[in-house]
Amino acid sequence: MQQYIDKAAVLVEALPYIRSFAGKTVVVKYGGAAMVAADLREAVMQDIVLMKFVGMNPVVVHGGGPEVSEMMKRLGKEPVFVDGLRVTDEETMAIAQMVLVGKTNKAIVAALNAQGGRAVGLSGHDGGLIRATRHLHRTRDGGYVDLGYVGDVAGIDTGVIASLIGAGFIPVIAPIGVGEDGHAYNINADTVAGELAAALGAEKLVLLTDVEGIRADPRDPRSKVSRITAAEIAQWLREGRLEGGMIPKVEACLRALAAGVPRVHIIDGRVPHALLLEIFTDEGIGTMVVR
Amino acid sequence: MQQYIDKAAVLVEALPYIRSFAGKTVVVKYGGAAMVAADLREAVMQDIVLMKFVGMNPVVVHGGGPEVSEMMKRLGKEPVFVDGLRVTDEETMAIAQMVLVGKTNKAIVAALNAQGGRAVGLSGHDGGLIRATRHLHRTRDGGYVDLGYVGDVAGIDTGVIASLIGAGFIPVIAPIGVGEDGHAYNINADTVAGELAAALGAEKLVLLTDVEGIRADPRDPRSKVSRITAAEIAQWLREGRLEGGMIPKVEACLRALAAGVPRVHIIDGRVPHALLLEIFTDEGIGTMVVR
Amino acid sequence: MQQYIDKAAVLVEALPYIRSFAGKTVVVKYGGAAMVAADLREAVMQDIVLMKFVGMNPVVVHGGGPEVSEMMKRLGKEPVFVDGLRVTDEETMAIAQMVLVGKTNKAIVAALNAQGGRAVGLSGHDGGLIRATRHLHRTRDGGYVDLGYVGDVAGIDTGVIASLIGAGFIPVIAPIGVGEDGHAYNINADTVAGELAAALGAEKLVLLTDVEGIRADPRDPRSKVSRITAAEIAQWLREGRLEGGMIPKVEACLRALAAGVPRVHIIDGRVPHALLLEIFTDEGIGTMVVR
Amino acid sequence: MQQYIDKAAVLVEALPYIRSFAGKTVVVKYGGAAMVAADLREAVMQDIVLMKFVGMNPVVVHGGGPEVSEMMKRLGKEPVFVDGLRVTDEETMAIAQMVLVGKTNKAIVAALNAQGGRAVGLSGHDGGLIRATRHLHRTRDGGYVDLGYVGDVAGIDTGVIASLIGAGFIPVIAPIGVGEDGHAYNINADTVAGELAAALGAEKLVLLTDVEGIRADPRDPRSKVSRITAAEIAQWLREGRLEGGMIPKVEACLRALAAGVPRVHIIDGRVPHALLLEIFTDEGIGTMVVR
Amino acid sequence: MQQYIDKAAVLVEALPYIRSFAGKTVVVKYGGAAMVAADLREAVMQDIVLMKFVGMNPVVVHGGGPEVSEMMKRLGKEPVFVDGLRVTDEETMAIAQMVLVGKTNKAIVAALNAQGGRAVGLSGHDGGLIRATRHLHRTRDGGYVDLGYVGDVAGIDTGVIASLIGAGFIPVIAPIGVGEDGHAYNINADTVAGELAAALGAEKLVLLTDVEGIRADPRDPRSKVSRITAAEIAQWLREGRLEGGMIPKVEACLRALAAGVPRVHIIDGRVPHALLLEIFTDEGIGTMVVR
Amino acid sequence: MQQYIDKAAVLVEALPYIRSFAGKTVVVKYGGAAMVAADLREAVMQDIVLMKFVGMNPVVVHGGGPEVSEMMKRLGKEPVFVDGLRVTDEETMAIAQMVLVGKTNKAIVAALNAQGGRAVGLSGHDGGLIRATRHLHRTRDGGYVDLGYVGDVAGIDTGVIASLIGAGFIPVIAPIGVGEDGHAYNINADTVAGELAAALGAEKLVLLTDVEGIRADPRDPRSKVSRITAAEIAQWLREGRLEGGMIPKVEACLRALAAGVPRVHIIDGRVPHALLLEIFTDEGIGTMVVR
Repeated sequence: MQQYIDKAAVLVEALPYIRSFAGKTVVVKYGGAAMVAADLREAVMQDIVLMKFVGMNPVVVHGGGPEVSEMMKRLGKEPVFVDGLRVTDEETMAIAQMVLVGKTNKAIVAALNAQGGRAVGLSGHDGGLIRATRHLHRTRDGGYVDLGYVGDVAGIDTGVIASLIGAGFIPVIAPIGVGEDGHAYNINADTVAGELAAALGAEKLVLLTDVEGIRADPRDPRSKVSRITAAEIAQWLREGRLEGGMIPKVEACLRALAAGVPRVHIIDGRVPHALLLEIFTDEGIGTMVVR
Repeated sequence: MQQYIDKAAVLVEALPYIRSFAGKTVVVKYGGAAMVAADLREAVMQDIVLMKFVGMNPVVVHGGGPEVSEMMKRLGKEPVFVDGLRVTDEETMAIAQMVLVGKTNKAIVAALNAQGGRAVGLSGHDGGLIRATRHLHRTRDGGYVDLGYVGDVAGIDTGVIASLIGAGFIPVIAPIGVGEDGHAYNINADTVAGELAAALGAEKLVLLTDVEGIRADPRDPRSKVSRITAAEIAQWLREGRLEGGMIPKVEACLRALAAGVPRVHIIDGRVPHALLLEIFTDEGIGTMVVR
Repeated sequence: MQQYIDKAAVLVEALPYIRSFAGKTVVVKYGGAAMVAADLREAVMQDIVLMKFVGMNPVVVHGGGPEVSEMMKRLGKEPVFVDGLRVTDEETMAIAQMVLVGKTNKAIVAALNAQGGRAVGLSGHDGGLIRATRHLHRTRDGGYVDLGYVGDVAGIDTGVIASLIGAGFIPVIAPIGVGEDGHAYNINADTVAGELAAALGAEKLVLLTDVEGIRADPRDPRSKVSRITAAEIAQWLREGRLEGGMIPKVEACLRALAAGVPRVHIIDGRVPHALLLEIFTDEGIGTMVVR
Repeated sequence: MQQYIDKAAVLVEALPYIRSFAGKTVVVKYGGAAMVAADLREAVMQDIVLMKFVGMNPVVVHGGGPEVSEMMKRLGKEPVFVDGLRVTDEETMAIAQMVLVGKTNKAIVAALNAQGGRAVGLSGHDGGLIRATRHLHRTRDGGYVDLGYVGDVAGIDTGVIASLIGAGFIPVIAPIGVGEDGHAYNINADTVAGELAAALGAEKLVLLTDVEGIRADPRDPRSKVSRITAAEIAQWLREGRLEGGMIPKVEACLRALAAGVPRVHIIDGRVPHALLLEIFTDEGIGTMVVR
Repeated sequence: MQQYIDKAAVLVEALPYIRSFAGKTVVVKYGGAAMVAADLREAVMQDIVLMKFVGMNPVVVHGGGPEVSEMMKRLGKEPVFVDGLRVTDEETMAIAQMVLVGKTNKAIVAALNAQGGRAVGLSGHDGGLIRATRHLHRTRDGGYVDLGYVGDVAGIDTGVIASLIGAGFIPVIAPIGVGEDGHAYNINADTVAGELAAALGAEKLVLLTDVEGIRADPRDPRSKVSRITAAEIAQWLREGRLEGGMIPKVEACLRALAAGVPRVHIIDGRVPHALLLEIFTDEGIGTMVVR
Repeated sequence: MQQYIDKAAVLVEALPYIRSFAGKTVVVKYGGAAMVAADLREAVMQDIVLMKFVGMNPVVVHGGGPEVSEMMKRLGKEPVFVDGLRVTDEETMAIAQMVLVGKTNKAIVAALNAQGGRAVGLSGHDGGLIRATRHLHRTRDGGYVDLGYVGDVAGIDTGVIASLIGAGFIPVIAPIGVGEDGHAYNINADTVAGELAAALGAEKLVLLTDVEGIRADPRDPRSKVSRITAAEIAQWLREGRLEGGMIPKVEACLRALAAGVPRVHIIDGRVPHALLLEIFTDEGIGTMVVR
């Protein structure tokens, strides 16, 4: 009997969340450990399909860095990074596109379909989805360095996503944009997720990471904060309290918040069903960033 | 962490049910203990609203016998029953209608609204919903007895229910039909629920009762069966293995199954959230009747 | 031949009215003699169904005071009134709701259906239609008296009415609202009709009364005025030239006019087909109130 | 007061007719005295606009013979008739088209608009409405005579009428068809009305004539029948009991009935508002022909 | 092979024009030589039908002066003109309407249908399309002269055109308006075309003329300009550099441009397929007038 | 002037084709020389975008064999073929998918977008578009050989294509299907094109090849036939008159014709704008296959 009571309690707790998110768009940045470990991967796929079934409109943006580097090495090309950004010449871009669009993206589509979803993979080419401009990388000494086909988001045409959502599909997006010159550009997946959330008027942006959330002290796992405002993050950025891969993540948060997305969540993708728990339970998981 | 795993497991278990019932109609006969005890009552209301939120179309049919008898007594009129059916003269019918439509029905509507639903109460008058004919009651000695304004369902016009479902409302129906003569008739609520499930092409009919399900031996609570076919029920009826109030319930089951409703559930309304557990968990509760 | 000419003349006279009211909402407050006498009652029902057939959207609000008092007496409870308002304790409210919703409302629904209409009865519970706050009654000596569950209209959610109108039904509304506390409140039917007309953007509000219209001198039936402005009524109210039951009626008029309803009619329900004649003939009946 | 009762009675009598004809198409053949006398003309226009206002879809087909002959004479051309059919050479056809389309049709459109309707004039050219073949006239001696551009209806494309009805317009049709050769053909207006009623699935075809209906004895006005079947008409035709202009009329009736139009009325256009009285009163006017 | 290359080049050149005009309305004033010579006439009809097939919404306005004068003469009435405007008494108006609506308009409808189009002819009567006021003609000496039933456009009700366009038809409009008095008025076809283009929010107005475009020197055919602004035309009008029939044409241009029509073309109807070449090729034909 | 006449002639010739193909689906198999040579490639892209602009619904299926082999070699893997079919082990399939989906498909999407189209790339994964079963290859000696992940089309779910077409996009499809086991399978692009044409109820299937059409004698270019029936092709197949890569092409033709596609065209992709010329000119190009 206690088992019945416990089960019912979980379902009842989820009720107001299902209600309040019905018909809302949630952009999920999928990456890190949740993309590598098979059981975590399957759990994320289940979570996304469940979100769709209960009436939300999940939109998935994925990264895929390690797979690109691996293919580069197999083709005899050594990956080079500057401040964590991949130096991307013509050939590197061609490889990155093949891997991200032809392999990673389709694997996610297939995995969502295996869970009963109806996913459709897209890159920035499709329907003119992501327009890119060349990213000018500012180095620590204040200069700029050209990293090749690394891009910033210049514009989003949400038409194809709107059509697919309206017809019941789950869009899965590879973070590649197309420049005015027609050339493809590699863009940071967190950045793409933030810009898409803004352009789609999303209710939430959720970033799956390999940490338990934002830490007050980057080296102390126990310093995770549950809730933080955009202003506090901006302050912490100025104070240099955020490091490495967390920087593009919080910048994507700030961008999405500024564009009107009410809530951004940075959650721990190493917890199975972290996404489901974040969306449908009271206590949540990770760090919630609000305006 | 175990707590997370348990919660996620419940949500994941519910997934295929949410998927398979999306857009489907489920008729719930609400009565018995679940209508009397305040905590059970609130739990049922939550369950019905949750069903609506996750995309199902619950339709509620309620009884209300004890309240009718109580009001009759207050008005100096002694309730008389023949084989469990209320003898219903002109005045009794007027009282029954006032109580069922003016009190019981509105209390359920208010309770559903308090849980965040948008319920609308109806009786068989509204939009010509339930047409009735006079019920001829066959006594044990093979004769017929006239019980007054006790009716059978002669026809259902689902128009008003369809309009309300389409606009996001939860219809709540008092079991009163209208005869060719324009007079109101009292109809057994289980019967109304079965006929409505048939007319609406419902996916499920769920009868909330005060027993744990159908028993192989009516006097042995441990003899409950989890699954039974229509043919077996018909056989048990012929063998006299079913008694009292269970008879109109299983007859409503048979009628609904014959009209194409795939599954009928007789569940124990004394278990909190029995409805939710029946719909959204693997093991279910009570007895499932299939063709 | 003269008979032909006369008939044709009536139909031709009705033409511009049918044209100008097509698709327009008309709120009819139904009460008084027209609710008691069988022939008047049938005539009103015909009129409302005719309005629907020729493309208007009638919405009916009914009272029912005498029936409530009668039931109270049968249950051994003496009705008490202060300034014409019923003192409404918990039990009185329960009785009023049973009678208004379970008896009066359904009788009107059945009578409209008998004329070929498709009526659906509602109370303020249904779809959250009428939200109420406790009415503070100001006595003549300037103090306030608590009359119990007597309410004012705090808000109208027209969703359920819009759905039903759109699907071809005639909504029939019992004047009961629901408070923040979930409790039912008795509200003056004229007031409900005025607020509904305002919320629905009705073209007309028609109040069926037992007088031939507004009188310049309340005691002189020959002093009826055919047309009066809101400003004049406000003046007459200040001067005390209006009395008794006419006060909530003209207040409902003023409220509806202020909210944008172009015309309000106070007509004599004792004239058979008064409603039809008011809507479809040139001379009209009773008193028309305009801004 | 009696005046009120009489008026209300007429409106109430009209009720079931308005209900049963809502959304139905009625083809009206307009001609004869009702087209000539100004007061009759205005009454017919009012009637047609009223039909539209109460939800019916009137479609008007008109003749116009006398005006054609008059213009021919002004242009120095003598009209020639064979068995009541106009011998139509190239020039005659050009004159007939100018008069029927450019004068008669537009006068009717303007008159309907003046009554508040929104009429649109059409001839068989418009949207390929009426395809014609050359009519071979059988003379009494059993031979055939070529009358020139006199046509039979070879086909109807109701597309343009459906579009206009759907947008709230009243189509007014001149009885001219277009042959395979692209040439215009003059067609009997009764015939066009019958074929249109059939093609549109009309509820009624009404022919306005200058007699009080079909007579059992063509020379005895008192021999009018109120109701007749298609079989009886066919019999009367064989017996030669019908004469002159009545023959194309009853042939149009038979054609429309055979194609599924339930009722055809031959009414007396000399009675003001004959159309309105036929549609909206119990006793009707003229002769009703049924299958 | 060269033939293939040439053909493909023409089709490819037409591509961006088909794209940019899809769903756009183009008003074509049809008159002059293109209305008289059989081969030119057929070419214009093909062009208009092609425009429709490739997704544009052509609306045709035609004149018809010579045919009116010819019919007047046949009826023994001498045409009188003041400054190029026809003095139009009651009888002249009746003749003009018969000819324009009953002859010219239907001939164009038939010709478009023969090319596979689905044309519907209209005059200002139909659906209240063109409301007219009496035109007061200002003579050179500054006085005013009454020309009878010669009208200005007082208003356009585009409802009937919108319905027909939406249903795939090509509207063909005779330049006749209806006054407040219900009387028909003759209006200059260029003026009607300009006002219609303005009311419909057309993308283009194209005037088919018998000159190669606007000339800087009215007497020198080689002085044609390819492009001119509204301001320049206004200047030329003030300077008297434009003469005769060109004046109402440029006034229609100015009116349409002022009302928001982006481009007006005055083209040479004596060139076969001038319309097609103007719309679908880079170099165009005639004179383009812009704001 | 002759230039005008020639241009107009081409546009006029294209008219009936634009008309008859409006709203129709045309599946284009894109491959061979037209995919390699830059100028041919651009011409095909223009042609497809033009088809879309004039109201047709082109759906593109592409191959990409040489690029796959090239990438295999770069990764140190030697391509092996049996009877022209690529032996496809796990790694080969991964490479083929990366190249076809991540490189070839996106290049086509980008090229269509550069011409003003709105293309969206898909593989068989997306929306469950192409379900595959393992292809059993029959060798010449009558045995079967397992070629690995080489598939046949087991089913098509046109949902995602229908959504994209409805929203104005051009679907571009890589010939990869997904098996019951969730694994990707390489499928012959001609076969995919034929099955898609059948499933979509396409009006035409056009195969772009590197020959001028079907030859009566495979070695004699002058033996090309302009028109051939399905029965004749079947006969030629039995007689062994068709060879090599032509066999899957004609089999795709036969499959599409059998499924109701009215016409299949095998055209010479080496002729610039061959597609445009085939669709929009009278003489056509290549070989048309009909039932």
